[in-house]
Amino acid sequence: MAAPRTAADLSAPAAAQSTPPRTPGSADEAADWLAIADDVAARLDITAAERDAVGGHAAAERALIRGSGLLDLSIPAAIGGAGQSWATIHGVVRRLARADSAVAHVLAFHHLQIATVMLYATPDQQRRLLQRTVRENLFWGNALNPRDRRCRAYRHPSGGYVFNGDKSFCSGSVDADYLTVSAYDEASDALVIAAIPGDRAGLDIRGDWDAIGQRQTDSGSIGFNRVRITAEDVLLAADAPTTTRHQLRSCLAQLVLVNLYVGLAEGALATAREMTTTRARPWAAADVEAAIDDPYVQHRYGRLWVRLRAAQLLANHAAQAVDALFFRDGSISAAERGDAAIAVAEAKVAAHDISLEAGSELFELGGTATVARPRHLDRFWRNARTHTLHDPVDYKLRDLGRWAISGTYPEPTSYS
Amino acid sequence: MAAPRTAADLSAPAAAQSTPPRTPGSADEAADWLAIADDVAARLDITAAERDAVGGHAAAERALIRGSGLLDLSIPAAIGGAGQSWATIHGVVRRLARADSAVAHVLAFHHLQIATVMLYATPDQQRRLLQRTVRENLFWGNALNPRDRRCRAYRHPSGGYVFNGDKSFCSGSVDADYLTVSAYDEASDALVIAAIPGDRAGLDIRGDWDAIGQRQTDSGSIGFNRVRITAEDVLLAADAPTTTRHQLRSCLAQLVLVNLYVGLAEGALATAREMTTTRARPWAAADVEAAIDDPYVQHRYGRLWVRLRAAQLLANHAAQAVDALFFRDGSISAAERGDAAIAVAEAKVAAHDISLEAGSELFELGGTATVARPRHLDRFWRNARTHTLHDPVDYKLRDLGRWAISGTYPEPTSYS
Amino acid sequence: MAAPRTAADLSAPAAAQSTPPRTPGSADEAADWLAIADDVAARLDITAAERDAVGGHAAAERALIRGSGLLDLSIPAAIGGAGQSWATIHGVVRRLARADSAVAHVLAFHHLQIATVMLYATPDQQRRLLQRTVRENLFWGNALNPRDRRCRAYRHPSGGYVFNGDKSFCSGSVDADYLTVSAYDEASDALVIAAIPGDRAGLDIRGDWDAIGQRQTDSGSIGFNRVRITAEDVLLAADAPTTTRHQLRSCLAQLVLVNLYVGLAEGALATAREMTTTRARPWAAADVEAAIDDPYVQHRYGRLWVRLRAAQLLANHAAQAVDALFFRDGSISAAERGDAAIAVAEAKVAAHDISLEAGSELFELGGTATVARPRHLDRFWRNARTHTLHDPVDYKLRDLGRWAISGTYPEPTSYS
Amino acid sequence: MAAPRTAADLSAPAAAQSTPPRTPGSADEAADWLAIADDVAARLDITAAERDAVGGHAAAERALIRGSGLLDLSIPAAIGGAGQSWATIHGVVRRLARADSAVAHVLAFHHLQIATVMLYATPDQQRRLLQRTVRENLFWGNALNPRDRRCRAYRHPSGGYVFNGDKSFCSGSVDADYLTVSAYDEASDALVIAAIPGDRAGLDIRGDWDAIGQRQTDSGSIGFNRVRITAEDVLLAADAPTTTRHQLRSCLAQLVLVNLYVGLAEGALATAREMTTTRARPWAAADVEAAIDDPYVQHRYGRLWVRLRAAQLLANHAAQAVDALFFRDGSISAAERGDAAIAVAEAKVAAHDISLEAGSELFELGGTATVARPRHLDRFWRNARTHTLHDPVDYKLRDLGRWAISGTYPEPTSYS
Repeated sequence: MAAPRTAADLSAPAAAQSTPPRTPGSADEAADWLAIADDVAARLDITAAERDAVGGHAAAERALIRGSGLLDLSIPAAIGGAGQSWATIHGVVRRLARADSAVAHVLAFHHLQIATVMLYATPDQQRRLLQRTVRENLFWGNALNPRDRRCRAYRHPSGGYVFNGDKSFCSGSVDADYLTVSAYDEASDALVIAAIPGDRAGLDIRGDWDAIGQRQTDSGSIGFNRVRITAEDVLLAADAPTTTRHQLRSCLAQLVLVNLYVGLAEGALATAREMTTTRARPWAAADVEAAIDDPYVQHRYGRLWVRLRAAQLLANHAAQAVDALFFRDGSISAAERGDAAIAVAEAKVAAHDISLEAGSELFELGGTATVARPRHLDRFWRNARTHTLHDPVDYKLRDLGRWAISGTYPEPTSYS
Repeated sequence: MAAPRTAADLSAPAAAQSTPPRTPGSADEAADWLAIADDVAARLDITAAERDAVGGHAAAERALIRGSGLLDLSIPAAIGGAGQSWATIHGVVRRLARADSAVAHVLAFHHLQIATVMLYATPDQQRRLLQRTVRENLFWGNALNPRDRRCRAYRHPSGGYVFNGDKSFCSGSVDADYLTVSAYDEASDALVIAAIPGDRAGLDIRGDWDAIGQRQTDSGSIGFNRVRITAEDVLLAADAPTTTRHQLRSCLAQLVLVNLYVGLAEGALATAREMTTTRARPWAAADVEAAIDDPYVQHRYGRLWVRLRAAQLLANHAAQAVDALFFRDGSISAAERGDAAIAVAEAKVAAHDISLEAGSELFELGGTATVARPRHLDRFWRNARTHTLHDPVDYKLRDLGRWAISGTYPEPTSYS
Repeated sequence: MAAPRTAADLSAPAAAQSTPPRTPGSADEAADWLAIADDVAARLDITAAERDAVGGHAAAERALIRGSGLLDLSIPAAIGGAGQSWATIHGVVRRLARADSAVAHVLAFHHLQIATVMLYATPDQQRRLLQRTVRENLFWGNALNPRDRRCRAYRHPSGGYVFNGDKSFCSGSVDADYLTVSAYDEASDALVIAAIPGDRAGLDIRGDWDAIGQRQTDSGSIGFNRVRITAEDVLLAADAPTTTRHQLRSCLAQLVLVNLYVGLAEGALATAREMTTTRARPWAAADVEAAIDDPYVQHRYGRLWVRLRAAQLLANHAAQAVDALFFRDGSISAAERGDAAIAVAEAKVAAHDISLEAGSELFELGGTATVARPRHLDRFWRNARTHTLHDPVDYKLRDLGRWAISGTYPEPTSYS
Repeated sequence: MAAPRTAADLSAPAAAQSTPPRTPGSADEAADWLAIADDVAARLDITAAERDAVGGHAAAERALIRGSGLLDLSIPAAIGGAGQSWATIHGVVRRLARADSAVAHVLAFHHLQIATVMLYATPDQQRRLLQRTVRENLFWGNALNPRDRRCRAYRHPSGGYVFNGDKSFCSGSVDADYLTVSAYDEASDALVIAAIPGDRAGLDIRGDWDAIGQRQTDSGSIGFNRVRITAEDVLLAADAPTTTRHQLRSCLAQLVLVNLYVGLAEGALATAREMTTTRARPWAAADVEAAIDDPYVQHRYGRLWVRLRAAQLLANHAAQAVDALFFRDGSISAAERGDAAIAVAEAKVAAHDISLEAGSELFELGGTATVARPRHLDRFWRNARTHTLHDPVDYKLRDLGRWAISGTYPEPTSYS
């Protein structure tokens, strides 16, 4: 029985550190983008509680994102984009999520759609779509939910398809300039993926998202009323083969979740700290001057901190693993893709747990003032609770367990 | 309130990866040493269960270590040593600990004493002691336990001290060629540290260690019967100031524990895997062909794996943080030392937990055959349980909590 | 060192079962009241989600309670009440809390104020207040928060006091026919407790409660504008001694929390069951027909169930322990009161944990449909999260730990 | 969907307490037996550590049990036994297990075999076997392990069977006066159960048990070398129907485990208390006079205590549920048996967890002196770790989960 390779690799930290994956963007550029993200986050933070209460579409905040340059992050420099690594892009996502995980979500999904183009599209399509994205500062949305099989693709005699039926959980769909869309081919039941403008005839973008968390993600449903998908729109035809490179998309999709969760936990911890320091009163039985001196409060922060740090390191490690494959020339072996998927799954589990824990512990730590409704401090937990339902953590754990026992890689699916 | 710096740093993975700490040893050299460690571990593994049962002194295994070149790892290349980073040295310790955490322990403590010389000794002392260590392949042991205040130092009219009294928990003391020793100055109660040969007159190395775990670490007591410590032997005099650089020693001491714990967890997991795969029978109610197909067994492995990976990454990160300071010229600020201490504390908590968990879960995973006494599979838990009592994890959590709330660094002590 | 007595008692289940505490109310009567509670709960359930969204005062629901006879439960049969045990009353509270923990809260607090009268008042006061309560079907509210020291009592030349200042967290204060109120005596700083009509001149019942949970508990603030408290109103004068019997009040107050928490967990579990059974879709990787057949879903329910059952049994045990003292003639020793306080603290910790866990797990179990905002299924967690901040669980654990180590009883306070 | 009935029942504590199951033995008798158990436990405690080290057969301790009268507990008074309830018998088992869970185990297994006779045997067999047991003070052992299918039953022309093949995990087999034995019928593969003297020709009781825990339980293997089983010996023939009453046996078998686990946890806690109080030194950073004043030590005790109490209450509740069926006349419905099985499973999970946790926490609590090998304090964990492998806790959780979701009872097997 071969030991899982990743464990062996880990034991060679000196070796590992000397060959960092060659990813785009200098350290200075990355730092600049992260500073921009901090700035945007600070502005989002001002109205985050209030917008959580109201829900609906975050028009002004999307405009802020549009103006920040952050929509260009994932687009190669050669095409006129910022050409940043996924590690940097997700550093940005995480920072935004500290203040507003809904707006961070739509930005992250924008970049996930860009990645979809980079992974699936022909060079011509890529050039055309991405150049236009940079030039017109397009905001992409998503209508790809693979669990919802209602939208069907019918082959069109002139090439391409007609999509008909409904699709749920279409994040960032309202106000999207461009959408990646999917349907199951009526003939073969194979998946078809395409990229179309948000105003394509027949699209009914309903804006009907109303959940307890991630409230401004516009993750509602779209009706496809005989929507024409031309051959030029198609990124993956029903009869096209799937490559290992294609399968990086689900790694990237899971990385979005990882970093939204970590950002939520970071935001919850920072908020708890603010409340403990400025509002919490010491408990009489503690016999201390201030809540921050309570030994049990300190211990709870310590426990939370270690778990958060573990999630942060796992998330960084996973982003680097994906970067190393994404930006590499040549084909990707199943084992290489599998290693990256395992790194992502590890981070996903840790991030899942800490996002919920931090969102709940913030109350224990911050004292009774935390429950005042005008503060809406339950939003960290509600956002985490909503988003962690994306796919069941138990099956991530099962996949990791199979790997840990026998080195079996997770079956590549839309979720693993 | 300033946010803890480490959290902010973490958000810049791209930046972080571009400036790895400059530490000694090339990646190739590190890989070679790790391969040697794997080889030594494989040989230790053959008799580890049996030696755990017998306890006592591991003479043959210390000879194996002596012959392996691993005693030179921490000694600078300029002096004739292998000149490796702490990340590599602890990669070696961890690999040995997978098979035999007691022998790994005495090797790790040897290097901790070398570090003590490098941190506390004058350049002359360093040259003399370390050259001799390389030349004669000396094995160092430890008589430094700061909690045991019974051994007292009396100033000697010709310079130096006379040490008198007992010292407990002296790991690696039996068969040590050289010892670092400490006592509290009778006049000032200040700590005195020295390095002396293991056969110095008046030393009564008792070899009386008999614990439920870490059984072959020779961690018994030493009687100091008016032992003469010359001025040349003294590494820290009672009236000498303590520097921030000195305080790296407790970071290194804690890193030993971290990596022994992580190695124990890795060994327990590997053993569990072996048992689940080759010995465990599927449970009837599971309705599967083999134990490895049981969904709950897989889930437990997944949970264990994520926690282990987190501990591994935190341990690697901490070693790199310490390396960056240890191998740097110039003075070290309290904040820099504090950041390293926090990184070490984070790793310590995660490693503590996983070592106990893996040592116990191995039974749940490996099935009833795991309890057969001739296998001595309880040694992973017993070793972890014994060694995790070194210093209370609750005060690491408290230190981390204080840091997470207000950015306060742990007070530098022998344990933090 | 004497072993804690309770542990020893537990080992004699046969003996224990043969001497049930003699408490009022037959088993048949109890069953009847519980059936009424189920009926009221079913009616509250219809609008619970919607009223949670709106918050504010639950006028119609308080009318429903008034009409149900449940306000009489704690009043002795001799005075015309239902004369039920606290075990039965809290069985009722728990059932209501499954559907609506806010309305359950105000009913529980009504009975806590009745208990205050029974514990503190003179026989004459009791007769007068309780007879009137039965006759006029009075609903009691609470203005006793001992942590808020702003309301001061000034002695009045004609006897009694004048209360002046603010009091926060006054549950059930809006629409209360009668209130128990407290203030600290300006001269001695001793606590003064009294019972006054809700329309007493100078009371400013603000109805300003706006929290993320327990939204319809009317737990806002009251302004005391020189409110006259006559000698007849006073239940505990500033110079009156405190008895062990008085100290049962905090046991009863904590029992309210215990049973609200347990009821919330029961409600969350029942809701999860409903969602898993009727709405959740099986996960593809699970390869099962229905979500209820998913082995991990089943396992999560099992874990939740065991913890809930433990909390239920501990809660029942605690109620019986308090009943045995409350309904007993003669004085109560500090040890007897201490044993009851320990039983209550045990239940409190278990109930605290399960209420939060069940409120959060319900989403993991019930699938993505649980996040639809119109269902307001986050209310279980929000209610638990809000109410579990009442007093820190860490100090309950500390009290229990002191007891477990050395048999020391918790210091009797308003919280222990 | 009907709610699980047990949950509903729990809500009626007043009702429940007024109808205690009518089980044999007065409260005074029970108290007397528990006092005897305490006395026996105190004597076992003196040598428990030493005997754990040596392992093997506990001849003197079995003689002590034989002389104590405890072998008669389960035998009906009408036949000359002590006629105690299972709640009392398991109170005894638990108390013995605090000091010595191996000897407690063989006593518990003796009574389990008596129960087997009471559940399976004809009235004549019962009278004959139990009268002889009382008269000759017989000690019963077990050779029933249903997972080991190697021992086969061949029908004998004169009636009865010949048993041939091996059987593992035969607790209490060495020195057993009588054994219950099982084999699978060669013709039908149905289970055959019988009771035979320990010296029956062809029995090879190997005494080969050598495990890391439960070392003096004599749980080794037995070889059946064409052992003649007469018709009179047979308790369950291959073609006999199984009744719901028969299925109480696995409830009783699981109750044995429950109470051994709870007793182990109680013993570990008592030992921890002893060590914390008399040996542990306070940690410097705690700034307290004694280890028992350390807030984190207190908190850990509190957490442990709540979990232990929950396990105790669940164990008591389960014993009462089984008693209520065991001692009842008339047939038992599948639902009634199912309710009892659920109560037992609940207790099993809680007891499983606390036994491991307490066995490990004792070290954290008791300080470094706990690891001294001569104390053998790891025996609590080793005993728990060994015995908790009896059957996987995950399938108890699955069974409980199925019940919690849909009210489905566990399939009656030898383990549930």
